[in-house]
Order: sequence, then structure tokens, then C-alpha cells
Amino acid sequence: MHILWNNQIVERSTVKIDIEDRGYQFGDGLYEAIRLYNGKLFMYNEHFDRLERCAKKIRLDLPFSRLELLRRLRKLVEIEKLSEGDVYLQVTRGIAPRNHLFPAKPQPVLTANVTPFSRPVTLQQQGKTACLVKDQRWLHCDIKSLSLLGNLLSLDEAVQRGFDDALLVRDGYFTEASASNLWFVINGCLYTHQDGPLVLPGITKLQLLRIIHQDQLPVKEMAVPVSALNQIEECFLTNSIEEIIPVISIDGKLVGNGQPGKLTKLLQQKYLEQI
Amino acid sequence: MHILWNNQIVERSTVKIDIEDRGYQFGDGLYEAIRLYNGKLFMYNEHFDRLERCAKKIRLDLPFSRLELLRRLRKLVEIEKLSEGDVYLQVTRGIAPRNHLFPAKPQPVLTANVTPFSRPVTLQQQGKTACLVKDQRWLHCDIKSLSLLGNLLSLDEAVQRGFDDALLVRDGYFTEASASNLWFVINGCLYTHQDGPLVLPGITKLQLLRIIHQDQLPVKEMAVPVSALNQIEECFLTNSIEEIIPVISIDGKLVGNGQPGKLTKLLQQKYLEQI
Repeated sequence: MHILWNNQIVERSTVKIDIEDRGYQFGDGLYEAIRLYNGKLFMYNEHFDRLERCAKKIRLDLPFSRLELLRRLRKLVEIEKLSEGDVYLQVTRGIAPRNHLFPAKPQPVLTANVTPFSRPVTLQQQGKTACLVKDQRWLHCDIKSLSLLGNLLSLDEAVQRGFDDALLVRDGYFTEASASNLWFVINGCLYTHQDGPLVLPGITKLQLLRIIHQDQLPVKEMAVPVSALNQIEECFLTNSIEEIIPVISIDGKLVGNGQPGKLTKLLQQKYLEQI
Repeated sequence: MHILWNNQIVERSTVKIDIEDRGYQFGDGLYEAIRLYNGKLFMYNEHFDRLERCAKKIRLDLPFSRLELLRRLRKLVEIEKLSEGDVYLQVTRGIAPRNHLFPAKPQPVLTANVTPFSRPVTLQQQGKTACLVKDQRWLHCDIKSLSLLGNLLSLDEAVQRGFDDALLVRDGYFTEASASNLWFVINGCLYTHQDGPLVLPGITKLQLLRIIHQDQLPVKEMAVPVSALNQIEECFLTNSIEEIIPVISIDGKLVGNGQPGKLTKLLQQKYLEQI
């Protein structure tokens, strides 16, 4: 297994992460997970745009340009001879004597690896169960940071209670799932939380909104209150890796008839046509 | 420089942190920073108690007992021939293929290092400046986790604005500073935020409360509203490394006469007697 380590591609066994890498001591870094279809990085530019915006928000200077990173990732994919899979990359604020203050002259550390992964067709057809979990994460959920313990704990709570995923609720409103954007259909209209500090601006969400607008499907980007739970006709999750996953039950109660809904399936089909 | 790496003490250059250590990819771990006075770990038991409580909260099984960890840390201190300094330790959920789900059989990774550090006497005499910053961290601030980007960003905001530290404000109430518990004196009475999900249960806070109760000084463990800002007579911060640090101005306005207050100095003296 090869790893992209800064500007080299090396065997995994030769990569050495320092104990004072700020990623290891502070979760001080960003990541992206990009889908690879047919050996090609899907929506690379949108992922890079987000990485750049997040880097600005945490005052991290990316140590590569858009094109440089793309070249390195492509080379990694080529060396690993991968066609279908995920590209995971992260960039930390680098090695510095441990101090909460950002170092004056950081040397960010980039690592990336690829993993074979096929489209989870069965999951996309059968869907997931979910339960409501209090959103206890920070107020910068728009930053795709390595400080992910809040997300992990929300998923763990759901799984411990016997569900596949958590639908996060903050102050009476749905925000997103533990690692996906969250969508509802209510009265024939699609709903997803507007971008802002409470949710990640997902790349699949972005692509889906393009499709929805192009097809003039009814959509509202706004937070859905938990009080609307009984009116939900369809529910699904989106993320770059799993694409569009129906939620078939919430807190043990079926969504619709417990099968992926009509709009969900339509969007799955339309999304597939893009890739 | 030697590192405690699981159950061995090795040269730093030989430690290898894996890129799939969950500490590196998710901030999925805990830490403690313990003060070393005269070659002895100060309040080790209280630090271990907190580590154990936090581990339970994130469902992490510590791979060592209280006594085992103490023995290893003492050995590290001995090898490094350190008398005055800090002992930093962290334990992550170990190496596993990247997945938000907690691994079924985690093998936690322990690392620790020691750093020479003398009591910051000048800082304790001169104090810090601070400004109000919105507390945007998660709702598990009682967990001393490695997912620290929220804390880092609050400190960075303060420093960018020309201050030494941030006094965090959530929903109109002071919580704590970027990496310290926060105390006020109002009308002759000490105030600090009660333990709970919004603040870290500090070890120095704990010790100071013992002193305060023993000496029957007036104290209330409750959140102070920002609206009380004009009534603040003294303000100080506590953490294990710097002990008790006066805050001499808030948002550019002097606290009292801009000198460390009477109670602050009394408590500094009494704390010093304990160490």
C-alpha cells in the first residue's frame, strides 16, 4: 500500500507521523474523501474548493496548489492501479512543540491513501435505520476538520441503541447525520438544511442541488423541525462515498412504507447518470 | 529525548505513529498534562481519575492501570533526569482502517513525553490580557479530548485581536478560557463555572476549591453572566501548567486597578504552599 506523504509517494511502512504533529495532538487539520469512479477523481474541483475555504477558516496555508495536489493524487491512484474506490487525504498544521498557539511558521503535513470500494448498491436499495441524537458538536460544522470526536460519539450512540446512523438534532431542528447531509421529503417537497455553521457543505449535496434545480424539482434549503417528524414522506442521506442512502425508519418508526421513496429513487438514478 | 510509547521508553526518533492511528484521523483520544515539581508528578491521582472518567465517556478502555501508568511515567522522568517540568500523555483509540465507527477490538496507543518548564513566576505576577470570544466548542467540554480545534481557534482569535487569551462566552455566560478554568471575584466572593458539560473539570480548580473550602473563603460555583462584567473586582485563570494567572484587563478595560487582586495573590500563595 502506497501513501502520498507530502510530495512523495512511498510505501506505507516508511511513513512516519511525528508525535508532535498537530494533527495527532490537537486534531488541527482538515480532510477530504473523494470518490474514484473509473480511475477518475469525481468532483475534484469542488472538493478542492471546500478544502481551500476550510483552510482559510482555520488560517492554514495549503502547501500545494489545486493542480499539484491533483497530479499527486492521480499518481497515487495510478501506482495503486485503482479504478473504483475512495481517495482520503488530510492536511495538518504540521510538527511543532506542543502549544495551543498556532506555530509562527507551520509546515503542513499532507497524507493521502486510496482504498478500493464499490458503489454500495445493496445499501442504496435497502437503506439505513436511524434514530434521533442530540447534536453536541461544535458550532463550526462547516469546517471539515480532523477534530471529529463529536461526530464519532453521535454515531456510536446510534449504533449502541441498535440503529445504523444518527439524525442530529440541535435546538429542535434536524441538522445532518453523523457523517452525511440529511434530506427529507415533506408534502412532495425536498428539504435539506441550508449551508452555514451547523452543517457540512457536502459535495454530493451540492451536486444533487444542481440536479434538482436543473430538473425544477421542488426544494427548500431550510432546517426541518423535529415537530414535522410525522409529516415526513421520505428521508435520505448524502455523502461522497455512499452517494444517496435512503433512511427507512426513524426511531423504529417506518418512513413512508419503509421502502426507499419515489423521489429518493429518482435522485439516485439521476445522480448515477452524472458519474 | 525519550518517549513513553505504550509500554516502552524509546528515543523519539524510533517512535512511529501510523497514519491510521485514530488520534491522527479523528482526534479520537484523550490527554492529560501533569506538572512535575521536584521530580514528582503533582496530583497524579486526580489526573488519572479524570482520564478514567473521560475514557468511560468515550467508551475507551485504558490499556494500563493507575499504578502501571505511574510507574512508566516515573521511569520516563528518571531517564530524562527532569526535576521541574510538564508530563504530557495522550491515549488514542489506536490503529484501525479508517471508519467513523469505533473499532470492535481497539488497541489504544499511549504516548508521553516530558518537557522542562519552570513555574512562570513573572506571568503569575504580571498577568494576562483577555478578550471575550464566543464559545463555539462542542457540548462535551468536560471531556479532555484530542479534538481541540475549537479551543485553538478561540485562542487564535484572541491573539489575532492583540490579547493573550480568550474568555469564552456561551449564551450570555462565561464558561472558561481557551485552555484554563476561569474565576472572578465579585463583591468579595469567588465565582467559577460549576462542573458539567460546558467546562473542563480542572485539576487546579479542584485543588483551589479544596483550599477555598478549608479556609472558608466565600465561593459560588456558578456561571457568571457577561452582564456582570462591570462588577468584576478580580479575574484569574487556573490550569495545571501555569497554576494561577491573573487577568489584568478584559477587552482592553482594566480589571480593578489593572494589578493582580488581593484574593488572587492570596490564592497564589496558598496554592504554592501545596506544591
